[in-house]
Amino acid sequence: MNKLLQCLMAVVMLAVHVSAWAADPLPSWNDGPSRRAIIAFVEATTRPGSPDFVPVDARIATFDNDGTLWAEQPVYFQLFFVVDRVRAMAPQHPEWTSIEPYRSVLAGDLEAALASGEKGITELMSVTHAGMSIDDFAAQVRAWSARARHPTTQRRFTGMTYLPMRELLAYLRAHGYTSYIVSGGGQEFMRPWAEQAYAIPPERIIGSHGELEYAHRDGAPVLLKRPKVAFVDDHSGKPIAIQRFIGRRPVFAFGNSDGDLEMLEWTTAGDGPRFAGIVHHTDGAREWAYDRASRIGTLDKALDAARTHGWTVVDMKAEWRSIYADK
Amino acid sequence: MNKLLQCLMAVVMLAVHVSAWAADPLPSWNDGPSRRAIIAFVEATTRPGSPDFVPVDARIATFDNDGTLWAEQPVYFQLFFVVDRVRAMAPQHPEWTSIEPYRSVLAGDLEAALASGEKGITELMSVTHAGMSIDDFAAQVRAWSARARHPTTQRRFTGMTYLPMRELLAYLRAHGYTSYIVSGGGQEFMRPWAEQAYAIPPERIIGSHGELEYAHRDGAPVLLKRPKVAFVDDHSGKPIAIQRFIGRRPVFAFGNSDGDLEMLEWTTAGDGPRFAGIVHHTDGAREWAYDRASRIGTLDKALDAARTHGWTVVDMKAEWRSIYADK
Repeated sequence: MNKLLQCLMAVVMLAVHVSAWAADPLPSWNDGPSRRAIIAFVEATTRPGSPDFVPVDARIATFDNDGTLWAEQPVYFQLFFVVDRVRAMAPQHPEWTSIEPYRSVLAGDLEAALASGEKGITELMSVTHAGMSIDDFAAQVRAWSARARHPTTQRRFTGMTYLPMRELLAYLRAHGYTSYIVSGGGQEFMRPWAEQAYAIPPERIIGSHGELEYAHRDGAPVLLKRPKVAFVDDHSGKPIAIQRFIGRRPVFAFGNSDGDLEMLEWTTAGDGPRFAGIVHHTDGAREWAYDRASRIGTLDKALDAARTHGWTVVDMKAEWRSIYADK
Repeated sequence: MNKLLQCLMAVVMLAVHVSAWAADPLPSWNDGPSRRAIIAFVEATTRPGSPDFVPVDARIATFDNDGTLWAEQPVYFQLFFVVDRVRAMAPQHPEWTSIEPYRSVLAGDLEAALASGEKGITELMSVTHAGMSIDDFAAQVRAWSARARHPTTQRRFTGMTYLPMRELLAYLRAHGYTSYIVSGGGQEFMRPWAEQAYAIPPERIIGSHGELEYAHRDGAPVLLKRPKVAFVDDHSGKPIAIQRFIGRRPVFAFGNSDGDLEMLEWTTAGDGPRFAGIVHHTDGAREWAYDRASRIGTLDKALDAARTHGWTVVDMKAEWRSIYADK
């Protein structure tokens, strides 16, 4: 029986292998240096007998989200959700029409709202991201992501996830890699839509998060979102979150901004083969072109580090055949 | 090709299924109410077409560790590690022979050391669990768990993991369940040995944890353990950690003390089939007998809740044929 099983399994594995070879795994990537570097790395770390072979359970990949897996201009998309919530809540708060930062948000002037600084942003986040159960919050995010559209592209926000990066996630998955999101964005904000967009389940979506409170309502336990930041998953918060949530150092990491520098540095400082990638926003026509001087997604020190260490920098304009998941 | 593949896969799946049926999956469990409840639940939630069928990705199980997966008397085993570290560090701290709680620890008087209260325990934890890199700490835990022995049983501590519970973990795994540890014990203390003991990888080991600091030593990044508690994974901390780390409500949970009550309550308050189990320490001859009055692993309110809600309470003496993983 065992012999028959082994034989059958071998045939199945061979067939799977052959069919994986047959199709182009990264059709939205032009045949440029980034595509070649990715494929060379994945093949070197997954081919049995390769000197750089990495066992399946160590094949951990971590991805930033804003600017790496989906767009982030003119502001992080989570802020559009905040605006949406402020508008929905405004009828219960008539005073908002005369006090900042609500007045600017309700007037659609995000620049002015952002000018209220950290205090204003924190207040907006508290009001819209706390005071309800985790289930109610997830339902609000789900409803928003199904309906809301980006002000300039008119696409759904989940349609502004990057097709080449979704292909990369699938390619890694097909080669035994386990991918995590490690994002400065809100963990509970990402989970309701990211599983479908990226095929990454909630337990592998790590982000900034607030305090939770365990309480009882009508005799049933609920988890309530409290208006207090518990953890900011950006800069050095990223390697810390990786250790806390995953407990292993990634061998493959992708980001796009200085907020990802520590994650890329931590990843590549490990022994053996390591891959660090940066999405460089160079396409002002199809997406946005920005780096060192941008307020959102500043890419300055990490760009220098990439050049020093030979990390892979994706020239979006030259290397991506398509940009968005929605055509 | 597709048809051939499908046919081969069907044969393989059938063979796997038949071989799973052939052997007793829980040989260390007597044919008692707990074993029957576990098997009935797992079959009902995994048999295709069952009205209680749960899809594979929702088959989340969470387990407490101390007193549920391994023993916890006369004190939580992590305290033996603390004692071991204090002894190892003592030559560099000659003053410890005259100040508490170090004097009692060095004299082997754990009762007196515990009498120093929360302040003393916190100081002992800080001194032994912080001030080094995560890699150095993991190496210390690994060395201790390979060498240290329990004062009364003389077994290795990992040998005092419960064989019936290890069988349960394997049985759940064979039925598509994904198990997590959700423990009041230290996350970084469990990870170095728990993967081998329970076949649960680090990313599924959740516990109390301290603050980390991202720093550079000799030009290389390091994660340093800081002497500050970040999260206590006990009581209501357990459902909070489950949401934060897993993002889904378990369908199956096991604990042994009042510290697990909220996790069991949160698990069973979900819709559809849910299982809550409690290890009741009733075997004073082979293990320890304790519940409501015990200082370690107090089982009082959770025992009442189990009776009210019909949770499964494992009578260790009557239902477990063997206790420890080490014979």
